[in-house]
Amino acid sequence: MENTITFLIQSKDHKGIIARVSSYFYELGFNILSCQQFTDTQQDAYFMRISLDGQDLPFSRAELESRFGEVAKEMELNWSVNYHGDLKNVALLVTKASHCLFDLLERQREGKLRCNIPLIIGNHPNLEYIANQFKVPFYCVPAGEDKRAYEGEILRLLQQHYIDLVVLARYMRILTPEFISEYPNRIINIHHAMLPAFKGANPYRRAYERGVKVIGATAHYATDDLDEGPIIEQDVLRVSHASTPLQLARLGEDVERKVLSTAVKYHLDHRVIVHGIRTIVFPEGNE
Amino acid sequence: MENTITFLIQSKDHKGIIARVSSYFYELGFNILSCQQFTDTQQDAYFMRISLDGQDLPFSRAELESRFGEVAKEMELNWSVNYHGDLKNVALLVTKASHCLFDLLERQREGKLRCNIPLIIGNHPNLEYIANQFKVPFYCVPAGEDKRAYEGEILRLLQQHYIDLVVLARYMRILTPEFISEYPNRIINIHHAMLPAFKGANPYRRAYERGVKVIGATAHYATDDLDEGPIIEQDVLRVSHASTPLQLARLGEDVERKVLSTAVKYHLDHRVIVHGIRTIVFPEGNE
Amino acid sequence: MENTITFLIQSKDHKGIIARVSSYFYELGFNILSCQQFTDTQQDAYFMRISLDGQDLPFSRAELESRFGEVAKEMELNWSVNYHGDLKNVALLVTKASHCLFDLLERQREGKLRCNIPLIIGNHPNLEYIANQFKVPFYCVPAGEDKRAYEGEILRLLQQHYIDLVVLARYMRILTPEFISEYPNRIINIHHAMLPAFKGANPYRRAYERGVKVIGATAHYATDDLDEGPIIEQDVLRVSHASTPLQLARLGEDVERKVLSTAVKYHLDHRVIVHGIRTIVFPEGNE
Amino acid sequence: MENTITFLIQSKDHKGIIARVSSYFYELGFNILSCQQFTDTQQDAYFMRISLDGQDLPFSRAELESRFGEVAKEMELNWSVNYHGDLKNVALLVTKASHCLFDLLERQREGKLRCNIPLIIGNHPNLEYIANQFKVPFYCVPAGEDKRAYEGEILRLLQQHYIDLVVLARYMRILTPEFISEYPNRIINIHHAMLPAFKGANPYRRAYERGVKVIGATAHYATDDLDEGPIIEQDVLRVSHASTPLQLARLGEDVERKVLSTAVKYHLDHRVIVHGIRTIVFPEGNE
Repeated sequence: MENTITFLIQSKDHKGIIARVSSYFYELGFNILSCQQFTDTQQDAYFMRISLDGQDLPFSRAELESRFGEVAKEMELNWSVNYHGDLKNVALLVTKASHCLFDLLERQREGKLRCNIPLIIGNHPNLEYIANQFKVPFYCVPAGEDKRAYEGEILRLLQQHYIDLVVLARYMRILTPEFISEYPNRIINIHHAMLPAFKGANPYRRAYERGVKVIGATAHYATDDLDEGPIIEQDVLRVSHASTPLQLARLGEDVERKVLSTAVKYHLDHRVIVHGIRTIVFPEGNE
Repeated sequence: MENTITFLIQSKDHKGIIARVSSYFYELGFNILSCQQFTDTQQDAYFMRISLDGQDLPFSRAELESRFGEVAKEMELNWSVNYHGDLKNVALLVTKASHCLFDLLERQREGKLRCNIPLIIGNHPNLEYIANQFKVPFYCVPAGEDKRAYEGEILRLLQQHYIDLVVLARYMRILTPEFISEYPNRIINIHHAMLPAFKGANPYRRAYERGVKVIGATAHYATDDLDEGPIIEQDVLRVSHASTPLQLARLGEDVERKVLSTAVKYHLDHRVIVHGIRTIVFPEGNE
Repeated sequence: MENTITFLIQSKDHKGIIARVSSYFYELGFNILSCQQFTDTQQDAYFMRISLDGQDLPFSRAELESRFGEVAKEMELNWSVNYHGDLKNVALLVTKASHCLFDLLERQREGKLRCNIPLIIGNHPNLEYIANQFKVPFYCVPAGEDKRAYEGEILRLLQQHYIDLVVLARYMRILTPEFISEYPNRIINIHHAMLPAFKGANPYRRAYERGVKVIGATAHYATDDLDEGPIIEQDVLRVSHASTPLQLARLGEDVERKVLSTAVKYHLDHRVIVHGIRTIVFPEGNE
Repeated sequence: MENTITFLIQSKDHKGIIARVSSYFYELGFNILSCQQFTDTQQDAYFMRISLDGQDLPFSRAELESRFGEVAKEMELNWSVNYHGDLKNVALLVTKASHCLFDLLERQREGKLRCNIPLIIGNHPNLEYIANQFKVPFYCVPAGEDKRAYEGEILRLLQQHYIDLVVLARYMRILTPEFISEYPNRIINIHHAMLPAFKGANPYRRAYERGVKVIGATAHYATDDLDEGPIIEQDVLRVSHASTPLQLARLGEDVERKVLSTAVKYHLDHRVIVHGIRTIVFPEGNE
């Protein structure tokens, strides 16, 4: 894992890409740890994830990227690369609900989420005690009238800490398009419903009122269009008539935290390609 | 099961109902097989399902109902009674998709759905071969311009066969309020999505386009308001980016048939109380 | 919840118990919040759980118990009572794995497990940092040669803290029958497999070697017979050939912690009756 | 699908196989529909599934196999090939339980299991009516004293119908090693429990007695060692104390039929490699 290098590749045409790309890395002497591909026949698009054993890296990263860049240009591939040994910096944004925050911190602490968490930002001071418990700096940035001002303050903190990924761990504020455009496909939000059902506020109350027998949660990249961003992960829970809205909310917390931490893990493991409002998520294997 | 008698009871007040109702039947000499209750604290409503061993029935059904009716009047209970030994007559309405039809017929044949199926009505002749295979009469009533005419023909068939429950087993026509009012809370429809998501046409295509990671199906009582009737049962299936709309539809069929046959079973077992647009479904035990 | 009083009742005969017990409490003026029953027709045994609103308690607890005791004696009922407002004292025993410990502490802290956790006992010092993080006293009692000695030390700690329930949160030592007999049906263990499959050591390795497609976890009351105690809760996870034994162990942790905390919750909510090596677990409703 | 050609490949070493094999087919002009690989780091073994669009087949199948055979020999690969347009002949062996038989016939009829079913063999005449319903020839071969004789009769029928795969759809007889050796890794059995739990007879009764909270089913290749063959698929169902052994059996039927038809589908789609007592099952994508 420490030395793994993963490329995500996207292209229009697909004939021969797997042969050519795998041969390319093989001839450079790489051991190919895994190679996954997907052809979207509906949209005539091709996607690939290839993981290499970076112990064998015969030259610098810069040279690897420059060399592969030329091949990719010739084959008209879009691509990105991830070095798993380099931990990403993740910022957690929260309001008052503790369950997702707890879960992310615990998983990171136990080595299940490979990342750094250099700071937690809350628009209320309520969860500072958890940040303290895990010894992570907590910044309270209240959401005042002047949206530009407090978002500016948050952006400053994110940039100051070289943040790669922003996780909205039940952060109950809508971010402006300006803010979101600073971190395209690098802000993950959790919505406490099975999108596209129950967009917007109070999904558990509305689920109760509609009398659904299944509730769920959705992790997605934040986009300008609220609750319409590309879905990374969803999961559900069977419920019955017997739960009140408050009890649904309680039950849903377990699903929310699982869905959010799974989505963050997929992102950190470089498994997700965004394509329009859909995502391709390459499944976990044993690499 | 043969001799079981089940009462469904609904009321405003709840204090003491369980004591008074269970004592009432106990003093009449009944063995109480099961007794379930639910208090909806949000809406201040009380619901109860009580099953008796009817072998002990000391007088006629008419007398049982008349006697209990008096008590219920005094206690201001709404109620209904079901004699499990009396099989209900169920009509299946279909179009072209065979999976739900097959499943319902098979379960009925294997003794898992306790009911008679005296007829199948299709608006296309495509599924007549399955009806023949199971030796159930099939009537083709094409959906022409004159909605009143063909619905009238269907109603005539239903009445002629003393139908208690109508199951829309992927019947792809919208029924008129007039038709539905003939069978209030006695028409069960299957919608191939997790309502309230993807109401209306082509839910699998829209699920594909939205890039959801979970698809589902919903069985509900038909009401005037399309896809807005009280939900009886829902279930889901995890999917990935890798399925085309057609493949989602294929995968979804297994969920649809399971959800529909479960909902029909709940109805036949007298487990469902409709309350507004919600249902109370008393869970299965061992009675 | 604060004022809820719950009786668990077990008896041989069942005819009329629900009527007589519910009437008894009704006539004392109680509001019956929920009433669940189960008749085991295989073993001719009857079980009941009845919850009362204790705000209405017209006399002392002692008098309630004494009065009901007389009725129960007459009807030949075994019974126990729980006052939900009185939090139970729960001790957590651990070794080196942190996931169950974390989860139980977090749920207790968030109000999802209604209990006190006055101490954590580890046979290694490894998890003291988590105890400190949650500000719970940690006692390290190494498991030496002299089993009687270290178990005696643990017992002393448990008694000193008035412990009602002992949770073996991946405590990797086998307890002696003498120890277990001190807390009959009050020690809950988590086994990291779907009992009765893979009893004993290294279940994930053996699951890998057998090539199973589903792994699971089992929470059960500890008895003399290792991994043979009454099962309270089980759950599973689909896996594939692609996971190594170590990866199965990692994946399994999420199931273990969910199963264990669910079982502890059922116990604390007074939902579990032990009957031979089986349990009756009355499902959660909205009381 | 009609024209798809799939190779399953197994080898010791893995470095470069994906590059060399994919390049090989690419250079022959094939469009590679999908390519999946798995490296078992525990056992130092490499597995690959590669699907080609056979419309592009530039020469005969014999030549394809002969050519690839040479390459494979050089690279020390074990391999097999499947032409999806050629439907396999599948025999169903049954006793008295109808649910798996029904499900397999229905799925084959609906185009979900791509195979021919030229005959059904029962050791009792009970299910002949279902065979008739689906117009499949039914042979009753009673299991008499002389095991060699009746197994010989079955083998004769299988050979006469050029059977590729034998499905034991709740066939309640133990086959001799001689019989099994005629169809190595080509006999699929369904066991009505979560192996390795509850091997042998009466699993549902034993599940009841043990008080498990989850039951399941296992589809595996039959080997000499009863219930010890390589597992292809498993699935589970949550149950409670409330089900009798008979009710567990009823509930389990839905899981059994799903697990069995899934395993048969995987086999027919050439997704399964047997490796010792484990299987590698390449997941379904969109090819």
